[in-house]
Amino acid sequence: MDEFSFIKNLLRPLAGEGSLALSDDAASITVPAGQELILTKDALVRGVHFIGSEPASQIARKALRVNLSDCAAMGAKPFAYLMALMLPPNTQEEWLTSFALGLQIDQEHFGVSLLGGDTMRTKGELAISITMLGLVPHGKTLRRNGAKIGDDIYVSGTIGDAALGLHNQGDAFLLQRYQLPEPRIALGQKLQGIAHACMDISDGLVQDLGHICTASNVGAEIFWPHIPLSDAARACPPKPETILAGGDDYELLFTAPANAPLSGVQGITRIGKVTEGNSVKVLDENGAEILLKRKGYKHF
Amino acid sequence: MDEFSFIKNLLRPLAGEGSLALSDDAASITVPAGQELILTKDALVRGVHFIGSEPASQIARKALRVNLSDCAAMGAKPFAYLMALMLPPNTQEEWLTSFALGLQIDQEHFGVSLLGGDTMRTKGELAISITMLGLVPHGKTLRRNGAKIGDDIYVSGTIGDAALGLHNQGDAFLLQRYQLPEPRIALGQKLQGIAHACMDISDGLVQDLGHICTASNVGAEIFWPHIPLSDAARACPPKPETILAGGDDYELLFTAPANAPLSGVQGITRIGKVTEGNSVKVLDENGAEILLKRKGYKHF
Repeated sequence: MDEFSFIKNLLRPLAGEGSLALSDDAASITVPAGQELILTKDALVRGVHFIGSEPASQIARKALRVNLSDCAAMGAKPFAYLMALMLPPNTQEEWLTSFALGLQIDQEHFGVSLLGGDTMRTKGELAISITMLGLVPHGKTLRRNGAKIGDDIYVSGTIGDAALGLHNQGDAFLLQRYQLPEPRIALGQKLQGIAHACMDISDGLVQDLGHICTASNVGAEIFWPHIPLSDAARACPPKPETILAGGDDYELLFTAPANAPLSGVQGITRIGKVTEGNSVKVLDENGAEILLKRKGYKHF
Repeated sequence: MDEFSFIKNLLRPLAGEGSLALSDDAASITVPAGQELILTKDALVRGVHFIGSEPASQIARKALRVNLSDCAAMGAKPFAYLMALMLPPNTQEEWLTSFALGLQIDQEHFGVSLLGGDTMRTKGELAISITMLGLVPHGKTLRRNGAKIGDDIYVSGTIGDAALGLHNQGDAFLLQRYQLPEPRIALGQKLQGIAHACMDISDGLVQDLGHICTASNVGAEIFWPHIPLSDAARACPPKPETILAGGDDYELLFTAPANAPLSGVQGITRIGKVTEGNSVKVLDENGAEILLKRKGYKHF
């Protein structure tokens, strides 16, 4: 299968409004009045962001989902994406077909379509670069820099599963949490006008909370006993460092005032408080600080 | 230099409006009313799109320019970009500094700024994925599918220099044409409302003209003696296959009716005619067809 057949047979069916059927040098879209356009670009490389032995469809879905998660973190509704696909030599037609199927499954699930991009062979590792586009009503974008002293700190879902899954690939649930994160798009949109600060946890809860603290010029205290854990994580048993610094959670981390209308919101857990200062402290059940050797993943 | 220092010290100074100072999960822009947003995404990989021994600044500039060229092909005015940077192990601070300088030089030259992106280490080859954004007045986007039988076919600049430069790295002019293409942004905007079809030549003139023919359901005849050549190319001497199928020109290729107001437009050359049929013919000075063994570059 050559480049043009791949585009025509496998990618064109995925192309949506504005893609010009992938037949021009670029895509062309109109952004509705009153909406901000949110753009995020995360690349995945084999050996860094996925194992490589996964089905191609699953790699495709993860590539979309980590970018969808960034849209969720901004409170945006994603609608389209561009993709640059760097393929190693000898990539087989079967692999390409599975990859396109993965894109199709998650396009339908999340209501996004392919706008354009680029495909090439490389001597290097398989890499997928996605640019995801979303919309958010003007002025409603969720930022990292709005946390206020006294805010409660929340996370969605359960934390640490993906990091445990990567190191314990025998557990199907935990491995799935690493391979197929669940972008919290509906929650992100619900938090418009409610959350003071928001981001998604990709590189470890403590390090990422540190980004909110730096951007907002505040500190934070989180309580280890309050961190939501899955049954599979509880069975490991979980160590604070793996859970809080492991990364790949793709859960939302946000702060909101004590009177925020969050009582009806499912799937979120209060884990701490925004404080004075500029550091993130993890406290145990006695209020003593748990010191972590590392706080998160650094890409280099 | 770690990831966060690289972003803070070298990338943040390049960040423009909408980037949120690179401190959030995504960028946020507002598109002016009456404008279409043009999005293009081309990735460059070492060994495929550049040699690798170039100064990092030049690699950065080429990465921007091939994407700027796609904006030019759509008639758009570029204004911002996102970048995913995949760095091989042991990339030195000196290299990163030079790379950021290259971005800065061309940002200023072309009036674009950094909106966001992603940086990581990879075991594979150096790769740079850019998503370039441009604006074009509503309905004025240049497409490939509008060529009409009887149109004249034009190119900008000179053709074949880059292909010759890649294979003849001793010639500084030709090598520069490969390493530092000149996106024809002003020309693209001038062609709004004038050109019937337009694209940029990245994979070889004949193959790329074939894309216009397919999209427009027409054929084309181009005249080898009319192809504009640089003095350096003439001295090689030039073979039709190298010139017409070599690629990496990043010149504009467009069609326009005979009465199009192009007489005052500098730097363009009429090279042929849009015809019936669906194939691209290259004719010599006697009107005999020159048959090419290959028509352009295939990425796989």
